[in-house]
Amino acid sequence: MEVYLDNSATTRVFPEVAEYMTQIMCRDYGNPSSMHLKGMEAEKVIRKAKETLAGILKVSEKELLFTSGGTESDNLALRGVASAYRRRGNHLITTQIEHPAILQTMHFLEEQGFRVTYLPVDGSGRIRLEDLQQAVGQDTILVSIMHTNNEVGSRQPIEEAGALIKKLNPNTLFHVDAVQGFGKAKIYPKKMNIDLLSVSGHKIHGPKGIGFLYVSDKVRLHPIVFGGGQQGNLRSGTENVPGMAGMALAAEMLYGKIDEDIQKLENLKKRFIEGVSRMENIRVNGLIPGKETGEGTAPHVVSVSFRGVRSEVLLHALEERNIYVSAGSACSAHKPQPSATLKAMGVEKDLLESTIRFSFSVFTSMEEIEYTVSVLGEIVPMLRRYTRKR
Amino acid sequence: MEVYLDNSATTRVFPEVAEYMTQIMCRDYGNPSSMHLKGMEAEKVIRKAKETLAGILKVSEKELLFTSGGTESDNLALRGVASAYRRRGNHLITTQIEHPAILQTMHFLEEQGFRVTYLPVDGSGRIRLEDLQQAVGQDTILVSIMHTNNEVGSRQPIEEAGALIKKLNPNTLFHVDAVQGFGKAKIYPKKMNIDLLSVSGHKIHGPKGIGFLYVSDKVRLHPIVFGGGQQGNLRSGTENVPGMAGMALAAEMLYGKIDEDIQKLENLKKRFIEGVSRMENIRVNGLIPGKETGEGTAPHVVSVSFRGVRSEVLLHALEERNIYVSAGSACSAHKPQPSATLKAMGVEKDLLESTIRFSFSVFTSMEEIEYTVSVLGEIVPMLRRYTRKR
Repeated sequence: MEVYLDNSATTRVFPEVAEYMTQIMCRDYGNPSSMHLKGMEAEKVIRKAKETLAGILKVSEKELLFTSGGTESDNLALRGVASAYRRRGNHLITTQIEHPAILQTMHFLEEQGFRVTYLPVDGSGRIRLEDLQQAVGQDTILVSIMHTNNEVGSRQPIEEAGALIKKLNPNTLFHVDAVQGFGKAKIYPKKMNIDLLSVSGHKIHGPKGIGFLYVSDKVRLHPIVFGGGQQGNLRSGTENVPGMAGMALAAEMLYGKIDEDIQKLENLKKRFIEGVSRMENIRVNGLIPGKETGEGTAPHVVSVSFRGVRSEVLLHALEERNIYVSAGSACSAHKPQPSATLKAMGVEKDLLESTIRFSFSVFTSMEEIEYTVSVLGEIVPMLRRYTRKR
Repeated sequence: MEVYLDNSATTRVFPEVAEYMTQIMCRDYGNPSSMHLKGMEAEKVIRKAKETLAGILKVSEKELLFTSGGTESDNLALRGVASAYRRRGNHLITTQIEHPAILQTMHFLEEQGFRVTYLPVDGSGRIRLEDLQQAVGQDTILVSIMHTNNEVGSRQPIEEAGALIKKLNPNTLFHVDAVQGFGKAKIYPKKMNIDLLSVSGHKIHGPKGIGFLYVSDKVRLHPIVFGGGQQGNLRSGTENVPGMAGMALAAEMLYGKIDEDIQKLENLKKRFIEGVSRMENIRVNGLIPGKETGEGTAPHVVSVSFRGVRSEVLLHALEERNIYVSAGSACSAHKPQPSATLKAMGVEKDLLESTIRFSFSVFTSMEEIEYTVSVLGEIVPMLRRYTRKR
């Protein structure tokens, strides 16, 4: 049995998506900028993809902008807004547990003269609305808060934050990095006061190399890539038509049975937590006291610290049993360093390097969960004995 | 018969490429940043792609950087160098007939305080080395010249320009936009003094949404996208593994029989030019006097002006006969405006809006060329009569 529990890193593409992309690559391969039939066919494929995605988010098709992925969406949202609204203010707000695509872009903007507030989080990995309330000022042009944390699965109070921001300063824009949330939650930007929303294709069983940014029609944006003026001059470059189509189809397949899938993932997570909780000296990170799953945490991510076991050692021991997991997150390439998210959550120092992320998908079965729990029960005590002997 | 002669806009993906990408998307779908087997498999796919491309260019694998396409490669080359070498000088050189991805990025850099020289071209669409010689100074940090023009197929004297630049100022870096040249010419950066080279996947029967930038190991570059630090911190974002693999396979397939393909394309072009030259009042653009095809022009692009016929009208008349061509280029989305390239070449004003680009690929047959010549011979005189009557 091969058990892939690293779905927050990337997901297996739905076969239907790959098939659809093949058709577009080999048959409907036109450049949407071409004025003939082949170009119009490609244009039609894009329009259909936009309709699908706009329908899921309940926004207008005109408010969707395709990018090369979540990282570019985040870069465009932050830098595009910062550049366009520079005259209105120079203050930005985010959290301490964002993805590097947000944090590194914020560092870049600090070098450009912007002032950035990094909101702390509580022990469950969630911001406090009081902190947000204190941070928003008259010069705050943008607040960027992630929907679902990629390392521990904690979910931020997005709707409350959106309402609060607009109450404090109606001019402040609200960006949400929903790379880990989209496909596993219902997200409605209009209702939630979200002005910009980042999504990635490869986290939802769609292709790599594609993502989108929802941009409310009220928002002005400056481009970060220059060229032929595609996508209303906001993202130059020949459109990745098969990527757009593939991502939209994957989203359509997920949202067609989203309630059922969330329930299934909740059940997997609940069973997994029950199983590992029977082990000694473990800690499940990112849960809200009193609430094991559900509200406040994502249904597909479980972060567990195994005291006395180095995460890399456990990762490779699990790999030998064909179970694929992640130590922290895969988002920082080859940089094994203590997780900033876990640190911000106040996780004890000796647990920081003993933490494993298990992330599920619609392909994950209960059988795989049982197998993983049983393997953990077998190898964790063994690894602990080995560590003590050294 | 469907005759697709818009291959400079985009190309049909090789079925083998789509098949390989499907395998990677649905089976070897790991995130190369993951530390387990699935991640290593993905890493291996990337390494193989790099080996293939590096082998073709005769460069080191470490000198290749994947991007989301030609436009991003051009942006990264120009802005990455301008930012990293700002202290050395603020002068940049390019030509008047570059792709918008270069021209618009140069305009952006002018706003940032850089001084840009735009070299003129002669009647065949080629720069004069004397102009380049006069332009390069001690404060010139970068020269960017396209390999093959996307509208008329003229080829620049890249090797001579490279040698000249290094003779005049060994510190000046040389970037070549080879989006239209790669796959239809042998390009060896080391031999040609090219420090940076942009390539796009979808122009060579590979996927859209992927490209690469060759960056000589002597060049320092600043990133233009910030995040997880992938690709040596020069291009953050989860790697588009299937895209990289697909592009490399397409390149491998093309370069496996490049001499044969170039000869084939030359023959198609020669026959096409012979055919249309029998018509009255036409002009083939971008040819070097005395040389019909071959040296100085690309084998796959023919630009023809049909006096007295509006290009859009001719384009749609050809479309009705299932022949797909381009008016000017497809690179500027939905902006039908007089071609800057043709203007720079000194093409007469009344021919500017009567020009059609025919671009071939390895899929193009001699039968399709004969059909197109015959249809042109039939409809162009008809359209001229119609125009006179109005």
